[in-house]
Amino acid sequence: MTTSSHTADVTTPPTDSPELALPELKRRLGQISDLGAAAGLMSWDQETQMPDEAARVRGQQMATLEGLAHEIFTDARTAELLAAAGEPADPTDAAIVQITRRDHGKATKLPTEFVEEMSRARNEAHHAWVDARKNSEFSTFAPHLTTMIDLARRQADFLGYEAHPYDALMDNYEPGMRAAHVKTVFADLRDRTLPLLRRIVAAPDAADYSVLTRPFAPEAQKAFAWRMAGEAFGLKSDFARQDESAHPFQTNFSRSDIRITTRVEPYWPACLFGTWHETGHAMYERGVGQRWERTPVSSGTSLGVHESQSRMFENLLARSRPFWNRHFAALAEAAPEVTAGLDPETLYRAVNRVNPSLIRVEADEVTYNFHVMLRFELELALLEGSLNVADLPEAWNAKMGEYLGLTPPNDAEGVLQDVHWSAGLIGYFPTYTLGNLLSVQLLEAARQTPEIAAGIDQAEYGPLLAWLAENVHQHGRSLSPEQITVAATGRPLTADPYVAYLHEKYEGIYGLS
Amino acid sequence: MTTSSHTADVTTPPTDSPELALPELKRRLGQISDLGAAAGLMSWDQETQMPDEAARVRGQQMATLEGLAHEIFTDARTAELLAAAGEPADPTDAAIVQITRRDHGKATKLPTEFVEEMSRARNEAHHAWVDARKNSEFSTFAPHLTTMIDLARRQADFLGYEAHPYDALMDNYEPGMRAAHVKTVFADLRDRTLPLLRRIVAAPDAADYSVLTRPFAPEAQKAFAWRMAGEAFGLKSDFARQDESAHPFQTNFSRSDIRITTRVEPYWPACLFGTWHETGHAMYERGVGQRWERTPVSSGTSLGVHESQSRMFENLLARSRPFWNRHFAALAEAAPEVTAGLDPETLYRAVNRVNPSLIRVEADEVTYNFHVMLRFELELALLEGSLNVADLPEAWNAKMGEYLGLTPPNDAEGVLQDVHWSAGLIGYFPTYTLGNLLSVQLLEAARQTPEIAAGIDQAEYGPLLAWLAENVHQHGRSLSPEQITVAATGRPLTADPYVAYLHEKYEGIYGLS
Repeated sequence: MTTSSHTADVTTPPTDSPELALPELKRRLGQISDLGAAAGLMSWDQETQMPDEAARVRGQQMATLEGLAHEIFTDARTAELLAAAGEPADPTDAAIVQITRRDHGKATKLPTEFVEEMSRARNEAHHAWVDARKNSEFSTFAPHLTTMIDLARRQADFLGYEAHPYDALMDNYEPGMRAAHVKTVFADLRDRTLPLLRRIVAAPDAADYSVLTRPFAPEAQKAFAWRMAGEAFGLKSDFARQDESAHPFQTNFSRSDIRITTRVEPYWPACLFGTWHETGHAMYERGVGQRWERTPVSSGTSLGVHESQSRMFENLLARSRPFWNRHFAALAEAAPEVTAGLDPETLYRAVNRVNPSLIRVEADEVTYNFHVMLRFELELALLEGSLNVADLPEAWNAKMGEYLGLTPPNDAEGVLQDVHWSAGLIGYFPTYTLGNLLSVQLLEAARQTPEIAAGIDQAEYGPLLAWLAENVHQHGRSLSPEQITVAATGRPLTADPYVAYLHEKYEGIYGLS
Repeated sequence: MTTSSHTADVTTPPTDSPELALPELKRRLGQISDLGAAAGLMSWDQETQMPDEAARVRGQQMATLEGLAHEIFTDARTAELLAAAGEPADPTDAAIVQITRRDHGKATKLPTEFVEEMSRARNEAHHAWVDARKNSEFSTFAPHLTTMIDLARRQADFLGYEAHPYDALMDNYEPGMRAAHVKTVFADLRDRTLPLLRRIVAAPDAADYSVLTRPFAPEAQKAFAWRMAGEAFGLKSDFARQDESAHPFQTNFSRSDIRITTRVEPYWPACLFGTWHETGHAMYERGVGQRWERTPVSSGTSLGVHESQSRMFENLLARSRPFWNRHFAALAEAAPEVTAGLDPETLYRAVNRVNPSLIRVEADEVTYNFHVMLRFELELALLEGSLNVADLPEAWNAKMGEYLGLTPPNDAEGVLQDVHWSAGLIGYFPTYTLGNLLSVQLLEAARQTPEIAAGIDQAEYGPLLAWLAENVHQHGRSLSPEQITVAATGRPLTADPYVAYLHEKYEGIYGLS
């Protein structure tokens, strides 16, 4: 196998007929998919099962699988086959060819030397970040962040863009989304939810929040979370399993082999709602059409759309009043000490506590998006050069004060809290908030069907799941995020439904109406 | 990548210098090793973790990994590099090249069409065997067995042999071992242990065997077995783990990542001694020298030598009087109901019950080898054509009567009990008995060192493990079974030590002296 750094020109007369090229192309895509599945299993195993001593060799094994997949995907024969495949009449084949061409274009636009340089820099930046966070010392991470920003600019140049280099980067995570659109939507969201947040913060507590750390045995937490993942949301052990890991995640090696992980803490909502968050990701992957199996089309279409599913399950459904009306008794059975003296309404209010905090991953529904907006604004400024890396902590802390009224006591709880920048993931953060917004926009559209709305109001999600499978899941990557949004909801992404949802829910909980 | 069906002639002037060829060859061998590790992990996962619905896609994923490994190993470039590598001066490199050449010769001697024909036939034979065993109906399996015998003959012809086609087949599992040698050793073993077996069968019970099915909680069985695997035999969770599976096995993806499985039954010795059997395999793989990492040399040298380690741990050590003198208290702590009213000596006698039975995998130390001899004799006769497949059940039952005095009531408990023949594994069975014989021959040699003998007599196995690592494990596949046997024990494999061991142990237990 050899590596080629650019694709064959698709206007070159094909040396193979489409009839021969397409099956050969699909065999290659199947191999690449299988290598990806193997690397995915190795990664899952590393996080959940593997003996510690195996780490070094495992890293090498995973690098081999990823390297082989990359070689097969970028070698000259793949380019020839893509050119020869033409424009298939069959819509499934057409989508496979289209998505593969897009991925192939991206994969071959980045020179091998640049990919290797980025990989080395990421590795060094990650280690520097781990140390910097441990010592809460931004200055030791700063030169690495400067390098990552420089590499991000160069990556954007290689990939190409029209309006803003940020567009080229974000496109890796949210295909088709542009910085200008995010700016508009985020400004709208900020202006309409900051006043709500200020009113909530000024209001008295809505419940006794100490219930959130009442004793709940680790095995019982996991068992209850997993039971509800199955009974309420349809994630079954026929095709899925749950394990523990330091950082919860979802992964899958086919739509029939889905793995989620969770983490158990004294603050038991972390395990429960975390499990249901991953369940949303899992049910998306479960719903991807069988016809995309072992092709690049076979996964969720973007991080934002993925997050719309996980946040819908975690927040819109599992943090709803009907959910706890229906499942309070099951919780009482699983953890009698937790529910002692409580009723479903009090529990509902407790798990919807709004509490501005320094840490994004601990944030509630109202404050979460401010953490994301802050990062988006800073990323743009860094990329544009209007903000220097050296001035980043100060800018971070200023925005933290402006949005959440808090001042980080140190960089570890401020600018150093997330792994993303050390991994070169710039343009990634907005997808979290895009997912939040889309979750409500989708749910609102689904509720137009009375049977679905009635189901949701009784925490009976079968009809909703069928609607999501039909309108979102089955398409895999064959439709873009915007195509899915418009087809399912009748309009592009907007903050309106989310803003309305927050007002209705939290004015109710905090008695602000 | 392309597939070549024969190697480049090593006398052709190399196009690459050895200095360049060797590193490139090692990179390829590393890739092949990593692909094998990924396929191994997928297989382990399938047996221990995977959701049921994933089976179909998993089969495809594993086939891709194995296919890629085979392609890389058999393509023209590997042959070129092997030719160009010459005869390296460094002994590690020399062994890597030598073993790779041997494997490559075998892999390229079988035409691709023949390998595919065998793969299809195996698949069909396996399904037929599952049905035939379920219905206890040999006739439906017979035509498939006829095919497998025919394929075995053709395979032997492709691989080549001097004295007997069986030699070519057995060489796949026990390199260098020949049918003539096995015949001699087995005849000796049979003649000298059949009289002992008859005397034991005629003797009164040596203990109350009902203790072997006393209640022992599944989790406690597994925990005790795993604890002893670590404390007595050195298998630690730093580099190994234990899971459950339908059929116990050991696998590993590096010497730092070893997995064993066990099965829990009301007959609790199955879990305990099964775990320690797999621990023997595991410690062999653990001891393979780091210098062979990610090369074909990095595993045990043969099935027989592997079995010598597993049977040593399971039988010679864990079924010994010193073991139970030392660990009886730990068992009493783990399972007080099991040990109630027992002493170590009674337990020792109970777990060493000799009981002729129809099923090989349930056989004790004295009868086990007769199950193997029977199969070896029948395989030879089938391959030579002196026995027809149609007459096999009758021949099986006759030998069962001759050796063990039993008549199978049906074929499921007779000729259909093992999976091996349906998988085309002809020439494999003898390795079980070769392993038994070698286990005692090795232990006797190790005991020549007083410190090791004193350790064994107190169930303190540190010195023995160090001796095994030095004399057996570290060499990986760089030494042949016979080289290891002669270097470690001073002579080729013989039945003498095993015969003496059986007499001393069982004359004692059954009061026959």
